[in-house]
Amino acid sequence: MRRIRYGMIGGGKDSFIGAVHRAAMRLDDGWSFVCGALSSTPEKSRASGTDAGLPQDRVYATWQEMIEGESKRDPAERMECVVIVTPNHVHAEPAIAAMKAGFHVVCDKPLCTTLADAERIADVVRETGRVFAVTYNYSGYPLVKQARRMVADGVIGPVRKVLVEYNQGWLATRLEDTGQKQAGWRTDPKRAGAGALGDIGSHAEQLTRHITGLELDSICADVTTFVPGRPIDDDASVLLRFKDRGGARAKGVLVASQVCVGHLNDLRIRIYGETGSLEWHQEDPNTLTHNALEGPTRVYHRGDGGLCDEAQAATRLPTGHPEAFYEAFANIYRGARLAILGEKSPAIDHPTIEDGVRGIRFIAKALECAAGGGAWTAV
Amino acid sequence: MRRIRYGMIGGGKDSFIGAVHRAAMRLDDGWSFVCGALSSTPEKSRASGTDAGLPQDRVYATWQEMIEGESKRDPAERMECVVIVTPNHVHAEPAIAAMKAGFHVVCDKPLCTTLADAERIADVVRETGRVFAVTYNYSGYPLVKQARRMVADGVIGPVRKVLVEYNQGWLATRLEDTGQKQAGWRTDPKRAGAGALGDIGSHAEQLTRHITGLELDSICADVTTFVPGRPIDDDASVLLRFKDRGGARAKGVLVASQVCVGHLNDLRIRIYGETGSLEWHQEDPNTLTHNALEGPTRVYHRGDGGLCDEAQAATRLPTGHPEAFYEAFANIYRGARLAILGEKSPAIDHPTIEDGVRGIRFIAKALECAAGGGAWTAV
Amino acid sequence: MRRIRYGMIGGGKDSFIGAVHRAAMRLDDGWSFVCGALSSTPEKSRASGTDAGLPQDRVYATWQEMIEGESKRDPAERMECVVIVTPNHVHAEPAIAAMKAGFHVVCDKPLCTTLADAERIADVVRETGRVFAVTYNYSGYPLVKQARRMVADGVIGPVRKVLVEYNQGWLATRLEDTGQKQAGWRTDPKRAGAGALGDIGSHAEQLTRHITGLELDSICADVTTFVPGRPIDDDASVLLRFKDRGGARAKGVLVASQVCVGHLNDLRIRIYGETGSLEWHQEDPNTLTHNALEGPTRVYHRGDGGLCDEAQAATRLPTGHPEAFYEAFANIYRGARLAILGEKSPAIDHPTIEDGVRGIRFIAKALECAAGGGAWTAV
Amino acid sequence: MRRIRYGMIGGGKDSFIGAVHRAAMRLDDGWSFVCGALSSTPEKSRASGTDAGLPQDRVYATWQEMIEGESKRDPAERMECVVIVTPNHVHAEPAIAAMKAGFHVVCDKPLCTTLADAERIADVVRETGRVFAVTYNYSGYPLVKQARRMVADGVIGPVRKVLVEYNQGWLATRLEDTGQKQAGWRTDPKRAGAGALGDIGSHAEQLTRHITGLELDSICADVTTFVPGRPIDDDASVLLRFKDRGGARAKGVLVASQVCVGHLNDLRIRIYGETGSLEWHQEDPNTLTHNALEGPTRVYHRGDGGLCDEAQAATRLPTGHPEAFYEAFANIYRGARLAILGEKSPAIDHPTIEDGVRGIRFIAKALECAAGGGAWTAV
Repeated sequence: MRRIRYGMIGGGKDSFIGAVHRAAMRLDDGWSFVCGALSSTPEKSRASGTDAGLPQDRVYATWQEMIEGESKRDPAERMECVVIVTPNHVHAEPAIAAMKAGFHVVCDKPLCTTLADAERIADVVRETGRVFAVTYNYSGYPLVKQARRMVADGVIGPVRKVLVEYNQGWLATRLEDTGQKQAGWRTDPKRAGAGALGDIGSHAEQLTRHITGLELDSICADVTTFVPGRPIDDDASVLLRFKDRGGARAKGVLVASQVCVGHLNDLRIRIYGETGSLEWHQEDPNTLTHNALEGPTRVYHRGDGGLCDEAQAATRLPTGHPEAFYEAFANIYRGARLAILGEKSPAIDHPTIEDGVRGIRFIAKALECAAGGGAWTAV
Repeated sequence: MRRIRYGMIGGGKDSFIGAVHRAAMRLDDGWSFVCGALSSTPEKSRASGTDAGLPQDRVYATWQEMIEGESKRDPAERMECVVIVTPNHVHAEPAIAAMKAGFHVVCDKPLCTTLADAERIADVVRETGRVFAVTYNYSGYPLVKQARRMVADGVIGPVRKVLVEYNQGWLATRLEDTGQKQAGWRTDPKRAGAGALGDIGSHAEQLTRHITGLELDSICADVTTFVPGRPIDDDASVLLRFKDRGGARAKGVLVASQVCVGHLNDLRIRIYGETGSLEWHQEDPNTLTHNALEGPTRVYHRGDGGLCDEAQAATRLPTGHPEAFYEAFANIYRGARLAILGEKSPAIDHPTIEDGVRGIRFIAKALECAAGGGAWTAV
Repeated sequence: MRRIRYGMIGGGKDSFIGAVHRAAMRLDDGWSFVCGALSSTPEKSRASGTDAGLPQDRVYATWQEMIEGESKRDPAERMECVVIVTPNHVHAEPAIAAMKAGFHVVCDKPLCTTLADAERIADVVRETGRVFAVTYNYSGYPLVKQARRMVADGVIGPVRKVLVEYNQGWLATRLEDTGQKQAGWRTDPKRAGAGALGDIGSHAEQLTRHITGLELDSICADVTTFVPGRPIDDDASVLLRFKDRGGARAKGVLVASQVCVGHLNDLRIRIYGETGSLEWHQEDPNTLTHNALEGPTRVYHRGDGGLCDEAQAATRLPTGHPEAFYEAFANIYRGARLAILGEKSPAIDHPTIEDGVRGIRFIAKALECAAGGGAWTAV
Repeated sequence: MRRIRYGMIGGGKDSFIGAVHRAAMRLDDGWSFVCGALSSTPEKSRASGTDAGLPQDRVYATWQEMIEGESKRDPAERMECVVIVTPNHVHAEPAIAAMKAGFHVVCDKPLCTTLADAERIADVVRETGRVFAVTYNYSGYPLVKQARRMVADGVIGPVRKVLVEYNQGWLATRLEDTGQKQAGWRTDPKRAGAGALGDIGSHAEQLTRHITGLELDSICADVTTFVPGRPIDDDASVLLRFKDRGGARAKGVLVASQVCVGHLNDLRIRIYGETGSLEWHQEDPNTLTHNALEGPTRVYHRGDGGLCDEAQAATRLPTGHPEAFYEAFANIYRGARLAILGEKSPAIDHPTIEDGVRGIRFIAKALECAAGGGAWTAV
């Protein structure tokens, strides 16, 4: 069994998401963690790398050193892929440098903090031909794959409306004032770019597109900072209009909030077509609800024999043995790994640079719309 | 036990809602059905009245005859209250005539079809001092009362955001072409005034105001007719901004659709305050969910000993013995009855002409906004 | 419209269940309350009757006087049916006397307190040919009818196993010591006969038989009084074996408890056949869940067009407009009324004396089994 | 970071549970897979070991060879722990041999196939002092830990009743005739020992004891083979009586079935105390429901700040990011690892030989009871 050798940028001791990426890779069982530049200061980088069990000579002080150092190693042992799990403002430069040095890249979402950066990254992906995966992890759930397949197969007819929500409540108070690291950088415009729109709104946008295949035509966004003194958005409500497809124009509503007390990590989507609808909730990811014009509500269960190939390929455990967040995340890594190995299967994919760029465009246009008084804005 | 004598306008043989009103009144157990003009043609009116067991001399061919005929009767036996359950375009005239003749009025929602008519009715309510109740029946549920009390008591802090939905799927196809009577008049602009906005959007608007006490400042509506050839809206998504209250401005999203396949009669509301949130679903009306900044999710059950007076007053059965649609409807009638009897209790109310007028204004402004290209519109 | 004239025995001011019966009859809309002996003492009977709006000369001091008094009245105005809502120990004598005097009877459950009494009542039903309905109200729910039809039609194949529960928590403490009237008589062996087994276990037994058509062969019961000092059972767990049907013998478990804190009125049933299963919960009565060997879980909704005739006949409101406890109760009355009118339809029935007797036999055998150390006992 | 070197017995190519154990260990991130005897025939063992990426010289043909071969290796590289994931009849001998050779053991459940074997294993655990963990994986869920803590802290008062269920439907037909490997050995009395009782009933028994701390006093079991021609039980319903604890005797019902169509892997438990109750479902493992005598239902969420140390220690992801089967399984491995490292923390444990023996005794007594006609049987 061939494992991809990866180096990580970010993901040091206090990081939440770095540990998640590594666990997802272990679950996928196709990755070897060989080097890292795990923190923003050289000392913390070294301490974190030692903690993580990396060999001393492959614990780097900075991501620049890592890319340079690994480039000099024997191709048979050098890293093959860079995993970027830093705050959003430290995505673009290492991603570009890594690809230019010949490495594949897995990058956390949102892709970066500006549309200009997003397009620069995209250009380098095209130039270098490297695999570039963005960890829109929620699209890795098996029943998301099933939903996408059902929409594509016309099970619910042409889509008319999408209601997508991503509500959380953890930032309902000024958590960032307590020293909580996650709250700190995610409410800092310099490091995060956008707040609720960037951190979670972009997931909602990508999930919608991933399942329906619809492209946004224009949006009307009401973007709010509810918590006094916070310098970034913590809530957004966005009316969506999708591009015409065969004469029909779908619409939708996207809601993303970090101040909706009582919601934990409540990404959910409902898709209404001419002849049926689908509903899926991230916090209850092992079921998918389907309604048709007639007959009972149908609830599909992950692991059911009748699900589509993509859903089966994304499944590890028998039905009733619940899978959850890590497994979906690991599926993104599986897709990236197969792409790197050149073994990409039709049933296993990963979010690409296109998802990344579109996410940044959505965020930028929503902020532009809100800043301009809320008139409908082309995307 | 003193029963209110009522006459009904509309509600003949094929009517859905007339039978519901009568059952609700029987459940309330304080009403006597004494006369009616039950249909739009004299023959059908007579046949329906006979069917309903009314005495021959109190089955009227038209509502005008009923008001005239009853006015001449001995006050000890004449009707005291007119119940109007006709399509929306036949609300204003009989309501005004009835009040001018000295009768109280219970009128189905929405109040009427134009803002001008709504204001005319309101003027007559003020002039005559008659009791005027609008059957926004969903606000009669016990746990809606509990939610309202909890908001008023500050249990969730100042409200920041409201997500209110009223989704149905029954008009996802051209049901009106099949001869289905309900679908027929509800998709006819002349009789209904508005479609999804009027029939169900107005319920969502009233429920929001009833629970939160917030007043709309401005809205941004995307109003759609998804079913080809239908001359009226069947879907609306509306961004809401509420009036400033003590420095804070709440926002919200209202969604109302008749084409969301799989939804039956799915009115639901979520209210997010600074320190907590509430959630209630009409199809699961015996529970109310409360989340605070900390601690577990709390689910309240209708009939619990600890609920507020208004919730207790609206309750007939012990907890676990589910109450539902009829009981909530009957609570509206109870409030109207007590008002007519001059026994109004602080715990038992009914939607008033103000609710009726605000509903029509909301509908009118949403349609105006949509017609004008979707710019934010003051309410 | 022809209404049945009824007199009520029990159901005075403090009664819970009497008011429920009257509301159910009003909802059914085919009953006239003409006389009553509403309480156990003459004064309270008179006061309750006056409160209820009965004419003075038809408010009786005792049920004996009521039967005698009404018998002397003009047949065109005398009561036709006696409704018995007293504690269990006052069911048998008035039921027998009423039938012997020519009146039909609707009697609350359980039928009475001893198997001997149950058989005496049954004898008189046979002798007199009167309509005799027992208000096993939960079997009146539309989706219970649907479940029964699906089992009868073989949708889930021959039944293998039934799990039926009726859990409540209201008697987890000595509520009977607080003066609470319901708790008082229901924990008094003289008035109630049995405790949890009688009050709720009998509902579970009847629901099982109603849906599956299976007859009990033998049972093994563990009957407990958990609350110290209580002179009656408050909990029972019963293993069930049903009679052989076509070579297959179904089994089951029945649980009934009044001390399971957190349960309100939680009657629920699951039926497993060779090719499918059904699940229904009384507290969520508008859905019925069906699973087959393959394919998604199917959730049926009351009011769906595709449901069986019996379910449709038991339905008043469109789907999504929830019906609940009163409506199911009213359906029992509708069945009784049609039987009295001689208009019994195949789709509308009511629990009969046979249900009543079997319920008492189940209670008696469960108590006998437990008293005898828990060996399997023939029913 | 120190990793435990383990060798696996069983878990070859077609095995379901071996792959699960390995994934759980990777998630725990403290184990190195160094050798294996992965199948019941030497050739398949070798092929499976090669597939798994083991070095050739540590792929053994039989478990005997593995124990012997590893014993000869340098202590710094030899395996430290044997993981046994074979069918139940191949648990006892390798476990005993491994411990005698100085290795720790992690063994799948149920412990073995006879009570005599269970006691032999227990003797060797005592003699050798080796760590011995039984993978009752469901007791590794964070909210199971929370439930156990709440019971221990008296939050629900002394326990009165437990309702525990483990229902599946996958063996509702003769799946074993189709060549499905899992169905094959699990319905073979020689390899499995018992059917539903062993495979899933033992989980239910252990979960009950783990959470409540109650010990079984006696049981009354109805054990059934519903599928014709199957030589082993596929369904059991068991009445439970627990040992007296401070004057109170709790009771319960345990249901385990493999023929309940529609259930996937539906382990759920409800515990009723004098002042409250708890409910948890394996298929919805991130919530725990608590009811008290008064007040709302309380739903706790995995990851909530207020949960107990044991629950927090068992948690990897923030609330709302669902954890599931693998993570709970990994927690068992974490407990075993810490025990092997001598770093056992009070908050992190693992099921022990005692759990294993009690499970086998429960199975044996249930079968004895059923074989003897169903009289209450001491445990």
